[in-house]
Formats: sequence, structure tokens, C-alpha cells
Amino acid sequence: MTPVRNGRHLYNEVPTGFPEPGKTTIQDDSQTIELENVPLNGGILVKTLVVSIDPYMRGRMRDPSVKSYSPPYVIGEPLNNFGVGKVLRSETPKFKSGDHIYGILLFQEYNVVKDLAEFRLLENKEGLPWTVYVGVCGMPGQTAYYAWKEWSAAQKGEVAFVTAAAGPVGATVVQLAKADGCKVIASAGSDEKVAFVSSLGADAAFNYKTTNTSKVLQMEGPINIYWDNVGGETLEAAIEAAQPVSRFIECGMISQYNTKTPYPVKNITSIVSKQLRIYGFLVFSMHGKYREQFYAEMPRRVASGEIKYQEDIVRGLDKVGEAILDVQTGRNKGKKVIIVADD
Amino acid sequence: MTPVRNGRHLYNEVPTGFPEPGKTTIQDDSQTIELENVPLNGGILVKTLVVSIDPYMRGRMRDPSVKSYSPPYVIGEPLNNFGVGKVLRSETPKFKSGDHIYGILLFQEYNVVKDLAEFRLLENKEGLPWTVYVGVCGMPGQTAYYAWKEWSAAQKGEVAFVTAAAGPVGATVVQLAKADGCKVIASAGSDEKVAFVSSLGADAAFNYKTTNTSKVLQMEGPINIYWDNVGGETLEAAIEAAQPVSRFIECGMISQYNTKTPYPVKNITSIVSKQLRIYGFLVFSMHGKYREQFYAEMPRRVASGEIKYQEDIVRGLDKVGEAILDVQTGRNKGKKVIIVADD
Repeated sequence: MTPVRNGRHLYNEVPTGFPEPGKTTIQDDSQTIELENVPLNGGILVKTLVVSIDPYMRGRMRDPSVKSYSPPYVIGEPLNNFGVGKVLRSETPKFKSGDHIYGILLFQEYNVVKDLAEFRLLENKEGLPWTVYVGVCGMPGQTAYYAWKEWSAAQKGEVAFVTAAAGPVGATVVQLAKADGCKVIASAGSDEKVAFVSSLGADAAFNYKTTNTSKVLQMEGPINIYWDNVGGETLEAAIEAAQPVSRFIECGMISQYNTKTPYPVKNITSIVSKQLRIYGFLVFSMHGKYREQFYAEMPRRVASGEIKYQEDIVRGLDKVGEAILDVQTGRNKGKKVIIVADD
Repeated sequence: MTPVRNGRHLYNEVPTGFPEPGKTTIQDDSQTIELENVPLNGGILVKTLVVSIDPYMRGRMRDPSVKSYSPPYVIGEPLNNFGVGKVLRSETPKFKSGDHIYGILLFQEYNVVKDLAEFRLLENKEGLPWTVYVGVCGMPGQTAYYAWKEWSAAQKGEVAFVTAAAGPVGATVVQLAKADGCKVIASAGSDEKVAFVSSLGADAAFNYKTTNTSKVLQMEGPINIYWDNVGGETLEAAIEAAQPVSRFIECGMISQYNTKTPYPVKNITSIVSKQLRIYGFLVFSMHGKYREQFYAEMPRRVASGEIKYQEDIVRGLDKVGEAILDVQTGRNKGKKVIIVADD
């Protein structure tokens, strides 16, 4: 059989500020693969359908000497992240040809995967689009669902402030908070995003680029729960607006990822005086407690329309660099997904 | 009967930096009281034996328009804080003449107290000095005991870093951590304090004024538990030295109380990447859960010598101003206590 192209998107150099398409990462279409003969050594051959573009990927674009929770990307190698693939050939009883799987895939058109421990079979009885399984029914949805359940301690009538509320994590949190009877204040970075967030039920959605966050919190707060996706000045405003014994769920701090001069939060002593409870977390530490519950519940709630989502879909691995930059700058409109191939 | 002097220590003006004895607070010996005739209106007449000088008092010396957890001191009125008194006369069945009580007393030689809800009878079957009941067996001991039980989640072999470790809270935490099998790194502000902390069993006690905290943590850490009494640069160093899922118990930030330019902690994003769990708290919110357990246990452990303590005792209400400044600057040697009168 003729070899076919196995296009890849490679990590090329460590960025200092924002990642640059074509410089930080580059497309490489020089490799080929023989789909019928490539040795699997007990693994599977996967056709990549969807890969996810997430904010945390910026943290993997670092000097490998810097330790962090996720391994750094390796220069000259393909990027990798959560994706959905279709099994073309299998040498393991765990998956069979035609199955759809979810796990960390290399950013290339075809993957031979041997270590299958972290891969999950997607039954998708609900017939959802595969892209959803890297968004509201994948890692971002898990992030929202696990941590809200674990730490929000939400009481009916409490006020939750959700940042980056148009993103896949924030939008899910907004809906979970509303389902728990909270008043929701929600920030996003464009009027279009704000409209989406309002459509999810947020009580006070605002564009933080044109409206002062502290003033909104003063008017609509004080708050009991803060869902932090952004850090920096917004975290400071949330501390200022926090009621005693507020819960701060620290999911991310994207305002601080692309700068060398961190914002100096000036009211840290309020952590004591306001008795704040601050929970930094990474979703993968919480799979053991919540994953099965999540998969039993979330695809059903999404399919029924109870939980809404918004996607920003781009076709082709060569668009990865631009997509990563979009997510870091907030130009994306909903969950950024790359469709690599049709099913 | 002849009236007797009722000396008082008054709050005189809002300090901008460190409180100044004779300026921020002043002694006033102009008042008298008729011990046999003063009307009690259903309350008690108390002879003040001991009053406590604590770091948090600085927070009460503020412009009254600034909200915080504890009421501001009122200019021209006596200071107040935890103390031990002896009941001279009583018009309530709750206490009888000769009883010793613990609660918030005005800084004056005699108090007529009507609202007794928050006062506690001290039985003191162990025969401890009364000063101990404002220290290791009072609010500071409760602070250490409650929060360590609630949040340390200490595992044998874990590393705890305790700041202001020669103070009554820190010293108690050091001993609770050792009792739970932790390795204890402990900082204090003089070689004499360090010697005391070492005598409590701390494994790596150091003088933070002459030894670099980050270097100590690098050598003796990483840490799993941080007991914060100081905030600022030390908090930053603790974040840097923290293992994933470390617990930060935020008890106080004394390095930040007397400055208008808060230290800009630069590694706040590590709260997410290291999954830090940060617990700000105030001891009085936790009485319901732990107080009876504390009184059943702590005086006994102190009397047996299992839990050690150190006091810095001064005689006379006129020494309050200097004592407050000592505690804010760290010049005190152990729990600062004013003995107002002998039993």
C-alpha cells in the first residue's frame, strides 16, 4: 500500500511572551505512514479526528529545567494534548477497530499508541459531536464539574463570580452555579462573549475590557465564591469583594502566563482577616473521585440541552499555532478545537 | 468606703506605622471606683489579674471606617483584650465571688461586666499560673490547636514550616507538629528565640534575620505544611518550597501590619500549579467545634510538661504601650502578658 501523509504540528522554540504561530510551533508535512503495515507492538493505530487547544498548554512551552505539573513540550517533537481518535487497527483486546477513544494524542494525523492506560473508550450513546468530548464532556468540563462539586459549598442565594466565563470551563461553571441557586456575576473579554454568558443564565455578565471589575463587584457583590481563571488584578478585586469565609477556586491565572512581571496583588492579608479558603487544583488529581460520575451525567445533560456549550472550531493541524495564540489572547469564541479529520 | 484608683490604659490615636507608647496609647490614673458600692445591674465586679498583648491588636488600631473582623478601638476609651480576672462581687448565678474568669476585659484595674455570655469560668484544677490562660491555654493556644487539627492533615514524616515559632501560637504549633511525627522547620527573630524553639523539638530552627529563609527551605524542605504568622516575603519563600497539595494555614501576616506598601508576592500562580490549599481563619469562628476539647486537653498537657511555653511577663497597666510595640516588632520573648494585680 502507498504511504500516506502524516502531517504533524511541531514545537519549535520556547516563547518568551505570547507564542508565535510559525515560530513557537510549526507545521511539518514531510512524514508519511503506511497504515496497513506500521508495527503496533500490541498497541493501536489511531486516526486523529479532533485535538483540543487549552490555556494550560502555554505552561508546557517552557525551558525543560523548570519543573511544573505537566511535562514540558520537547523542541522538534509534535505537540500533544487531549484528542479524540478512531481506532483503525488494534492489537489489544481493550479497543477494537472502529472504536472512538479519548486521551492524549500527538498532534499528527495518525498515532500509534502503545500505552493505553489513560485512554478511554467513548461510547457516545447520545450521538454528540466528537468535538464535545474535548470540551464540555472532556477535560474542561471535568475541571468545572469536579472542583465546583468539591469546593464551592454553594448555598442557594450565594453570589458566585466566574471569570473567563465564555470559555468551556467558565461557561460550565456558570451553569452549575445557576443550577445550585447562586446569583452569578460573570466576566468575559468581548461583548459577543458577554451575550453568550448571559444566554447561559448569568445574572450580571460584563466585558472586563470596557467595564471596571471592582465596580461591578461593588454593585453586584459581595461574593461568596470566586472561580478564578485569570489571576492578577481580577484576583485582587475578588479578594476585595469577598465575604468572610468565601471559597476561592483557583483553576488558572491566564493573565499571568505570558508576562515576566507578575501583577502584585496588594490585599493578600485579607486571606486571614476574611478567612478565605483558597483551593488550587489540577483536574487530573481528582479523576479518582469524580470521573465516572462525570461521564454518567454530563453527556446526558449536554444532549438534553440542559448544559449548553459553545465551540470555536478550526479545520487542519496547520492552524494549531494560530489557535494556541487565540486562546492565550482570548480571541477564541468558545472552546477552541481543531478538527483534524472527519469520522 | 474610700474610692480606690481604677487605672486605665487608653487608646489615644490611630498609628500610621508602628504604635508609639505614650502617643498611640496612654496611661490614665485619674479614675476611681467604689468597690463595695459600684452598681452591677445584674453583672459582676472583676479585679483584673492578667491582660494579654497579642499581635492582632494592631488591626484594631485603625480608622473606624475601615471594616474588619474585630471592632476598632475607640479613641479616648480603654483598650480591651483577653484577660483573667477575679470576681469580687456578683449579682448573677453564673459566677460567684472568688471565681476566676476568662474573657475580654477593658484595660483597667477593675471591670464591671454585665454581658457575660462570652466569659468562661476557669476552674484551673491543674493549678497553672493565671497568665497561662491567656497564652498556651487561652486564645493563642486555641489558635494553634484548632487550626492544626482542622487543616494540617499532617502525615508522619511530612515537613512543616512554622513561622514566628517562639511566639505562643508558633511554639504550640511546633509541638503539635512534632507530636504528629512531622519534621519541623521553624523561624524566629533572635538567636535566643531560636534556642527556645530548638528546645521544643524543632528539627531546623533558624534566625530569619541572619539566615536566608529560602536557603533553609531549599536545604531542609520541600515542605508539606506552612504555618503562616508573618506573610510577605516568607509566604513567597514557602510557596516556592511547597510540595504539590501543600496545606497553608494562614494565621497571621505580621510583616504586613505596620506598612503601607504590602510586599508583592511574585509566585501566586503556583497556587494553581502546585495545587496549594490555603486556609485563612480566625480562631473565634472555630470555638464551636473545638473549644471544649481544647479545655479538656490543653491545661492537662501543659501541667504535665508535655506542652511547653514561654512567657514575657510585665507588671503594670502603664507598661501596655511598650508591650504592644514589643509584640509588633518581635522584641518580646514568648507570650507577652501584663500582670495587673496579684491574685
